Amino acid sequence: MAKKTKSKVVKGTLKLRRLGIDTYRENVAYLHRECEIYRAEGFQALSKVEICADGRRILAVLNVVDDDNIVTPADLGLSEEAFAKLGLDEDQLVSIEHAEPPESMNAVRRKIGGDRLSQEDYHDIIGDITDRRYSKTEIAAFLVASGQTDMDRDEVFFLTRAMLEVGEQLDWNESLVADKHCIGGIPGNRTSMLVVPIVAAHGMLIPKTSSRAITSPAGTADTMEILANVELDIKSLHDIVRKHRACLAWGGTAQLSPADDIMIAVERPLGIDSLGQMVASILSKKLSAGSTHLLIDIPVGPTAKVRHMGQAQRLRKLFEFVGDQIGIHLEVVITDGRQPVGFGIGPVLESRDVMQVLQNSPDMPNDLRQKSLRLAGRVLEFDPDVRGGNGYAIARDILDSGRALEMMNTLIRAQGAQNEKFDLGQLKHELVSPADGVVVDIDNLQLARIARFAGAPMDKGAGVDLFKKLGDRVEQGEPLYRIHAQYRADFNFALSLCEQNNGYLIGEGNQIPRAFVEF
Amino acid sequence: MAKKTKSKVVKGTLKLRRLGIDTYRENVAYLHRECEIYRAEGFQALSKVEICADGRRILAVLNVVDDDNIVTPADLGLSEEAFAKLGLDEDQLVSIEHAEPPESMNAVRRKIGGDRLSQEDYHDIIGDITDRRYSKTEIAAFLVASGQTDMDRDEVFFLTRAMLEVGEQLDWNESLVADKHCIGGIPGNRTSMLVVPIVAAHGMLIPKTSSRAITSPAGTADTMEILANVELDIKSLHDIVRKHRACLAWGGTAQLSPADDIMIAVERPLGIDSLGQMVASILSKKLSAGSTHLLIDIPVGPTAKVRHMGQAQRLRKLFEFVGDQIGIHLEVVITDGRQPVGFGIGPVLESRDVMQVLQNSPDMPNDLRQKSLRLAGRVLEFDPDVRGGNGYAIARDILDSGRALEMMNTLIRAQGAQNEKFDLGQLKHELVSPADGVVVDIDNLQLARIARFAGAPMDKGAGVDLFKKLGDRVEQGEPLYRIHAQYRADFNFALSLCEQNNGYLIGEGNQIPRAFVEF
Repeated sequence: MAKKTKSKVVKGTLKLRRLGIDTYRENVAYLHRECEIYRAEGFQALSKVEICADGRRILAVLNVVDDDNIVTPADLGLSEEAFAKLGLDEDQLVSIEHAEPPESMNAVRRKIGGDRLSQEDYHDIIGDITDRRYSKTEIAAFLVASGQTDMDRDEVFFLTRAMLEVGEQLDWNESLVADKHCIGGIPGNRTSMLVVPIVAAHGMLIPKTSSRAITSPAGTADTMEILANVELDIKSLHDIVRKHRACLAWGGTAQLSPADDIMIAVERPLGIDSLGQMVASILSKKLSAGSTHLLIDIPVGPTAKVRHMGQAQRLRKLFEFVGDQIGIHLEVVITDGRQPVGFGIGPVLESRDVMQVLQNSPDMPNDLRQKSLRLAGRVLEFDPDVRGGNGYAIARDILDSGRALEMMNTLIRAQGAQNEKFDLGQLKHELVSPADGVVVDIDNLQLARIARFAGAPMDKGAGVDLFKKLGDRVEQGEPLYRIHAQYRADFNFALSLCEQNNGYLIGEGNQIPRAFVEF
Repeated sequence: MAKKTKSKVVKGTLKLRRLGIDTYRENVAYLHRECEIYRAEGFQALSKVEICADGRRILAVLNVVDDDNIVTPADLGLSEEAFAKLGLDEDQLVSIEHAEPPESMNAVRRKIGGDRLSQEDYHDIIGDITDRRYSKTEIAAFLVASGQTDMDRDEVFFLTRAMLEVGEQLDWNESLVADKHCIGGIPGNRTSMLVVPIVAAHGMLIPKTSSRAITSPAGTADTMEILANVELDIKSLHDIVRKHRACLAWGGTAQLSPADDIMIAVERPLGIDSLGQMVASILSKKLSAGSTHLLIDIPVGPTAKVRHMGQAQRLRKLFEFVGDQIGIHLEVVITDGRQPVGFGIGPVLESRDVMQVLQNSPDMPNDLRQKSLRLAGRVLEFDPDVRGGNGYAIARDILDSGRALEMMNTLIRAQGAQNEKFDLGQLKHELVSPADGVVVDIDNLQLARIARFAGAPMDKGAGVDLFKKLGDRVEQGEPLYRIHAQYRADFNFALSLCEQNNGYLIGEGNQIPRAFVEF
């Protein structure tokens, strides 16, 4: 079937109207129920339609309007992003056509049927997704289908390359652009805010862009925002990186991986996350950001994303295979994911932990310091002049000497220090140990959930502050952690969740699960 | 996690407004960008929210409005169906909360991971879908996940029972309520419009509700509508069936299977159709309609939905297994699906074929007559008083004697004869054979597509009229079929599709695929 003959042209034209309705990444068109074209052509609410004028065309989902104050029968209304995408003026005459599903949905249906897809298939699918030719349900079908039978490693490479090709790619004009990335799932794991200043203080280029929390109690961007502005436009970002060799910015403004942004908006609410999609998403984003050398952190533990060493090794091989194919220097470290990193969970608490480590404060969480030093050491070893095994000592020197703190303060000033002061949530409750014993398990998922119920990351001062970690001896009645919240309702929700399951297990020292990890 | 503590209560209340926007089966809530709650709580366009007041609550997807004429910062707007579902008056104060995904999405994620689900899982999923707790993307995830690895037969039974339980069930207070159903995919296959009058003339109860075409060029409801009103309210439908033992109505008004209606609205645009979902959909709908005895028609052919006999047998066993478990008397016939049935494709042309068979016209399509008689015969044999093997002869007597035509005219009068006269599309083109030979293949899918491009089923007079069928000898230049269209643009689209592939293959008689079917 020819691509161009798929839609039915509809006779008649409508006046374009911009409606002040933000439907996020889904284009919506509004047609009055009494509109002649709607009646004649049997459009239906939720039909997919194509809007065209002047050689421009966009796809949209149809909503039917019964209120002349929103659109009249002579109008075609568009939601904000759809209007911007069509790029025409109000009152311009436009036509509307039935839209057939994108051609590449045939490949998605083959994937649902269990087929292996080709580079061309992935190219077409990702191209159509980027052009907003897929509805949310079609994207969900692609994500579930490619997640369920999982893609083989060639397919993951095809998908990564397709995602890379549809975005812009930053070029820093240097042969070594470093980055690090953790696959996520461990509360408090804010190592980037330590690795970046350490590595940049060494002189290595590390332009770090991070995401905000979507399903976790804090992302690196949310936490850095306690200290500095993170919403940098592309020009400021470039200037800061040129001058200081680093940044700690929110990655959303750059729109480096448009396909990934669209797919994540569907994937996260569904709570699905297949290994192949994770690898393609991370690698395409890092390559788009211009990284040449990448350290991947895979935490393993009973309540981490990756629960067994075998699974971690499979994921490592997949990262390595696709990384080699796509042309990025990539190292994987498998780390201890048995419990949260540091003491704080939630933006304010996590920024406190980070600053304590930078300031070499006696109260600092040592596990966050150790993990960050080891990761920074591995990144530093990307430098050909650093001898294998020497990275850790260099990183430690930089941290201990205060040069990392100095670099962090430089970055804060460059990005713009935060004007607003975020306080810890004033509603507090300390959870105490029910018995004497040793902490033998801390449930990452449950602690993250309690912090979210308490208000994190929206209420930046909300969260959980841990007093005890794995292996710590506790007495009955001794506090395990403190919950902070800003609002009474959130506070009560967090407390009632705690009552069901406080996330801690007290037992005997020999019950602690062993960590089969490098560090 | 307790079910009731999942959402964050949001402080403050908003005035309910009904917006004249029809978003079909998806609830949409409209909040002004300057609304205090929106700003404080970090809602995002496309967030899922829960609206509550007076103990009532509905889930909705959030759209953000920048136009005070649509909603003011003090309002919460709801789309038509959402407003109706909440069931409160305008200006009533409502609150809005972040909504977590429905609990049963955990089961969907397990299915994505390849698990087998339990009766309770399906019960929860279908319950949540019916309560509109699933977004379209979540429904798509469920459909793809349960379609891709396919459900085992127990799971199909669980799903069928869950779908049955959420709907209402008609009760005709008779021990034998007959129905027939074809799984679809064969153009022109309008046997129901012959089977129903034949069976009803015998005195058997057969209250037939049918669908409109969604992806095909005509459904039984579209075709019957050429002759009579098909949109009957529940009371008229009951009255007609009581009085005349039958009806030929559109099934949409009865809303017998709410879960199925919601899922089909997602499934059809995606073009996915797994065997398990098909069986659950058909059987739950038939049981809801009060059927006790059901004949299932599975056409097999190279361009039918079911392409091989092995696949047809697997589907038959699945129907039989679930039918027995759920308690319906069910027979399956596997039929010849190698080509369209009858001559016409499109509502007007198909109604002509049906009436010619009823009128015993010499021009009638004999294959439609034969297939309908055999199906009607099998339905008649549900009658304990009809001896096995005698059904066909009884059906033929009823048809030949004119009693079937009489019953059809009775039903037309009872439902209300169609006032509007639908003419055949006046734009015509005859497609001729490129060579001498025998028709060895007619592509069901391509002929359906040509008829749809020509305007069917929206333009009821549009479609394709076949002159030659499988095995017919043709000479070069002799017409194979005629295209009818109402609009020039559609006509041209259909012609250009024809030029790419006219759907006919002319060859030698021994190339005709064999039909491994009962009749």
